[in-house]
Amino acid sequence: MSFYIPDLIQKKRAGGEHTLEELRALVLGFTRGEVPDYQASAWLMTVFFRGMTARETADLTQVMAESGDQMDLTGLEHTVDKHSTGGVGDKTSLILTPMLAALGLTVAKMSGRGLAHTGGTIDKLESIPGWTPELSEERFLQQARDTGLALVGQSKDLAPADGKLYALRDVTATVDCLPLIASSIMSKKLASGAHTIVLDVKVGAGAFMKTLDDGRALARAMVDIGTHQGRQVRAVLTDMDTPLGHLAGNSLEVLEALETLRGHGPQDLTELCVTLAVEALSAYGEDAQQAEIRARQTLKDGSALAKFRAFIEAQGGDPTFVDDPGRFDIAPGRADIAAPTTGFVERIDALSVGRAVLALGGGREKKGEAIDHGVGVELLKKPGEAVSAGESVMRLYHRGGRGLAHAQELLNAGITISAQQVNTPPLILDRVN
Amino acid sequence: MSFYIPDLIQKKRAGGEHTLEELRALVLGFTRGEVPDYQASAWLMTVFFRGMTARETADLTQVMAESGDQMDLTGLEHTVDKHSTGGVGDKTSLILTPMLAALGLTVAKMSGRGLAHTGGTIDKLESIPGWTPELSEERFLQQARDTGLALVGQSKDLAPADGKLYALRDVTATVDCLPLIASSIMSKKLASGAHTIVLDVKVGAGAFMKTLDDGRALARAMVDIGTHQGRQVRAVLTDMDTPLGHLAGNSLEVLEALETLRGHGPQDLTELCVTLAVEALSAYGEDAQQAEIRARQTLKDGSALAKFRAFIEAQGGDPTFVDDPGRFDIAPGRADIAAPTTGFVERIDALSVGRAVLALGGGREKKGEAIDHGVGVELLKKPGEAVSAGESVMRLYHRGGRGLAHAQELLNAGITISAQQVNTPPLILDRVN
Repeated sequence: MSFYIPDLIQKKRAGGEHTLEELRALVLGFTRGEVPDYQASAWLMTVFFRGMTARETADLTQVMAESGDQMDLTGLEHTVDKHSTGGVGDKTSLILTPMLAALGLTVAKMSGRGLAHTGGTIDKLESIPGWTPELSEERFLQQARDTGLALVGQSKDLAPADGKLYALRDVTATVDCLPLIASSIMSKKLASGAHTIVLDVKVGAGAFMKTLDDGRALARAMVDIGTHQGRQVRAVLTDMDTPLGHLAGNSLEVLEALETLRGHGPQDLTELCVTLAVEALSAYGEDAQQAEIRARQTLKDGSALAKFRAFIEAQGGDPTFVDDPGRFDIAPGRADIAAPTTGFVERIDALSVGRAVLALGGGREKKGEAIDHGVGVELLKKPGEAVSAGESVMRLYHRGGRGLAHAQELLNAGITISAQQVNTPPLILDRVN
Repeated sequence: MSFYIPDLIQKKRAGGEHTLEELRALVLGFTRGEVPDYQASAWLMTVFFRGMTARETADLTQVMAESGDQMDLTGLEHTVDKHSTGGVGDKTSLILTPMLAALGLTVAKMSGRGLAHTGGTIDKLESIPGWTPELSEERFLQQARDTGLALVGQSKDLAPADGKLYALRDVTATVDCLPLIASSIMSKKLASGAHTIVLDVKVGAGAFMKTLDDGRALARAMVDIGTHQGRQVRAVLTDMDTPLGHLAGNSLEVLEALETLRGHGPQDLTELCVTLAVEALSAYGEDAQQAEIRARQTLKDGSALAKFRAFIEAQGGDPTFVDDPGRFDIAPGRADIAAPTTGFVERIDALSVGRAVLALGGGREKKGEAIDHGVGVELLKKPGEAVSAGESVMRLYHRGGRGLAHAQELLNAGITISAQQVNTPPLILDRVN
């Protein structure tokens, strides 16, 4: 079928609803270079103003997923994928995925690298010498079948339409458009092939979505896309005003994940992992109460830790790092951030912590940059805790250099101390399914 | 001043008002190739949705006028320009401009060529052998000073921003946007330099504006732009459901113009020319009643015809064509279109007549195509007149060929005969100044 592209832009401009074939002509045409970028950007702007129906958004997502490689996971049982919209200190995947494997589900997952102030699972795992995200498709599927957990880097040809559209949105003021955000995330999840998808939608200063209402709308849009495409999608809205857990930075986050897998993790991180595991099990019909008991058990009986060790070893990693946290190469420098006044910690701004890690060299500004796995920030206090003036609130792990002063400045500016005890927001803000 | 273009798109997207400097960055940047077309098209779409204030539209027009050559007419007295939004059988400029010269005003005008179903003044004048629209700027200004009337083709460097933006709008569904339409027309009028501008805004089936409300809004926008830029602008809204006068086609229209300049023109055409001349004189402070008497006089005393002859001769044209209409090369073929039933002519669709002339070879589909000046259509009846079944309503002037059957088909479909006498709309629908 052939379409005259200006007619399709005009249709959306007038508030019309695109058919699947029209979306194919627009999006695949653009990806193949047949639809010029000036038509694509005009169309994206009409979508910003006119929006998309749930059906249209689902079809758009499907078309983007179809634009490149699609992983066939139909040979695996009880597949589950997890996605976080990105936060600071968010090592959830490192804990949740072996928990899910220990619970009998199959995680055959693609992960990304970190960009700007948010970290990436692949970067964190590369703190363990030898571990590689590069597996052949055959080995990837075999490992998932054998251990219940395999994790590879995102194929360059996974939803290439999304990458091309995103680059255009970035320079045409069309990034902050709900159906485009939702379809961008979900196109990669659909192409990755899992039947059940658990979404962690972060809300707050350190997240893309700043308000709970915006987060809820995004969660609803993503769940609707999955439902339209025959997947099971569950979303949990979680607070990202404050970093998750106590540690931010690649090796430091793996250490905290290992602590959690041993049953000694921080309360917020542990609760989030249990919550997401319950959602995944519920999607496969398990009773929620029963699911919660089983999920917690994997952290007590070492079954999740065993899955993690098997997974690290299967992908070439040195398993002694799993057993001996002392082996990680943590930056030797220390610098503490002190409370400016006596009172209660009201806020530790997640964005400031994320940017401090970046300033220390633990993240990348641009794709492809090398990172320092050993640097990071430790939160010695969390919101709600009492502090005295001059008492340490945070600790930097650094190797000196120019970034240190900038990191200290960011962290000093990111602390809010209140004279009175204040209520801190709950971690789990809402659920959408 | 330097701007980050996505911020400017974002500002308009949020309903903001651009400054003159922002519009310069966007429009001149685009014209120079520094702002890529995908950003320009996204911005044009935000303008479609958010609109522009009168001040913004005036500034946009100014920026477009500034983008290329600007004619300096300050050495001439009482300059006046005229623009029609385009119609069928519209030979008004051929009559009005010598009338204005005879009335003591100065017309130093740039005109365009015809495209699609609308004719162009340059094409019509080229029916007279030797006449040329190519004059040096010096000769153009001298002739305007000497005879009060000079007419050249539009410089390629007249408001190049408009040409470039229009080409982009054409393929991104952003043509039908009021501030963009108004600024496109007015940028060329501002760059052309006349102090007073008389606008003939056509409304109806054969015009770009299909309804009187749309026409009024366009007229208001154009008058406001001129006022903001210190020009005198008067707009008249006129009916273009039916072709103007009785003849459509290049040489045929010159013949009808000569008849009108001799005082024997069709009533609608004569009235429109007088109305527009009165607007021009009123803009220079003349009393409307006095102006009308003087304007009609130029058609009775031969002074307008004398100006036309002097103008044709000054630009190389053979003046014997002005005196002897038999010299024009009119296509020899004749074919009549008969009334299908007895009754009253309700409508003769202007668009059908325009397309028929095009089918006969009297117009061009694409810029640069050669045209046949001798073909055309004569309206033997006008709306409101009685006809018997089989009586001729229109006559084609043709040279045979493939287009004839298509032209006949178009004209047959363009006639509406009513059993009862119907009211025909007045020619002058409204005025805006």
